[in-house]
Amino acid sequence: MDLIENIRNDLFAKYIGVELIQVEEGYAKAEMKIKQIHLNGVGMVQGGAIFTLADYAFAAASNSKGTVTVGINNNISYIKSPKGKKLIATAKEVSYGRKICTYTVDVTDENGELIAQMNAMGYIRQPKI
Amino acid sequence: MDLIENIRNDLFAKYIGVELIQVEEGYAKAEMKIKQIHLNGVGMVQGGAIFTLADYAFAAASNSKGTVTVGINNNISYIKSPKGKKLIATAKEVSYGRKICTYTVDVTDENGELIAQMNAMGYIRQPKI
Amino acid sequence: MDLIENIRNDLFAKYIGVELIQVEEGYAKAEMKIKQIHLNGVGMVQGGAIFTLADYAFAAASNSKGTVTVGINNNISYIKSPKGKKLIATAKEVSYGRKICTYTVDVTDENGELIAQMNAMGYIRQPKI
Amino acid sequence: MDLIENIRNDLFAKYIGVELIQVEEGYAKAEMKIKQIHLNGVGMVQGGAIFTLADYAFAAASNSKGTVTVGINNNISYIKSPKGKKLIATAKEVSYGRKICTYTVDVTDENGELIAQMNAMGYIRQPKI
Repeated sequence: MDLIENIRNDLFAKYIGVELIQVEEGYAKAEMKIKQIHLNGVGMVQGGAIFTLADYAFAAASNSKGTVTVGINNNISYIKSPKGKKLIATAKEVSYGRKICTYTVDVTDENGELIAQMNAMGYIRQPKI
Repeated sequence: MDLIENIRNDLFAKYIGVELIQVEEGYAKAEMKIKQIHLNGVGMVQGGAIFTLADYAFAAASNSKGTVTVGINNNISYIKSPKGKKLIATAKEVSYGRKICTYTVDVTDENGELIAQMNAMGYIRQPKI
Repeated sequence: MDLIENIRNDLFAKYIGVELIQVEEGYAKAEMKIKQIHLNGVGMVQGGAIFTLADYAFAAASNSKGTVTVGINNNISYIKSPKGKKLIATAKEVSYGRKICTYTVDVTDENGELIAQMNAMGYIRQPKI
Repeated sequence: MDLIENIRNDLFAKYIGVELIQVEEGYAKAEMKIKQIHLNGVGMVQGGAIFTLADYAFAAASNSKGTVTVGINNNISYIKSPKGKKLIATAKEVSYGRKICTYTVDVTDENGELIAQMNAMGYIRQPKI
């Protein structure tokens, strides 16, 4: 699956330590071990790091079907501060139309607590390869 | 201004190369020179990097008034791919209530083209210090 | 339950034909029979009517716990045009913190197809009565 | 301008008293005189009525260029309760791409106070007529 190769070659995700764990049609799971580089100025995991993890899971899920999909809108709600050593993002397809698709991504911590929830909308650029 | 010190000490922003350029009451500007680490698997600036830049400008602007504000919701629309060597995020206050504040952040490229627009909502945790 | 009385006395919901079907802690279901007054200029159910139905279910669910909650942010994605004679909105709690709560609302048509999905954030104004 | 005729023939907007005041390329203004039918169960203007007004201004602005545009995502933040007898929504184009456009809509009351702000994304279905 070519498009998932592109996802795996994401330099920014690599740089900050986001890893793709699983990808199936319309579904993906990604993980980020929390390190000091992820923290903001008051010692919490930075919102941008959480967003990047979630958005990466969305990118993998939305490109899982052999069609090039680009993110056009993301809405993220931050719910609580994480505990433990890693964050897990799980992206699930909500809808997949002719040109527009929508996904929900849950970000949980090691205890399974919901840390953030994202709703993401993609534009399907190319037909199935 | 103590809270802005916290913003300046953001480890994740430092790690990915986001810099605070200017901060005034209800306003902030941040910048990110585009490097290879910011790219995704198809050579574009990754959405998470753009988000982090915008969110950082929002954090600076919303903590510019001496009150601890935490981000609770961000909505970002991606508009076009950037050209040139850096991205600039400009955060402006839209509203500032007793407990909730809202900001708009424009992300532009070196040519002044709008790359992304974020709407961010903060929860004002502490009264003025 | 006093707060739900307020929800039931919503004049705008009554005026456009939105009805509360069920309400439990953190959950609510509302319904709208599609009439001509709900259509836009090209004969589709108007986005504002769909939003109002979803937002009303959110209001009922978020006020189901004996605390006054006001909506501060809603994000809605329109997925497909409805078929059949009515729309059903189902609101479920995602998180309920000390001051902020989040809900997801699915709007489906008579065939159970997802028409729109809303993410709603509330500010909890008053402690439990 | 045909498409604006469709906007003017919106039955739901008529039913709840939303009026189109002005429309230019990428810009529209709509108005709603506040009546009892717009109130929720605690006597405030209902969020769905405010949303409908804003979304209608967005629909007019986004269809002002001779291309059929359908709303796919709206993000609305509620800022304060209105004073006075009417609400005004002003929609302005933020971006207009080949397939996706974005708009910001400010809803103000009679005193010019910002009541709500919406960000709306449209999908451009048809080429210029």
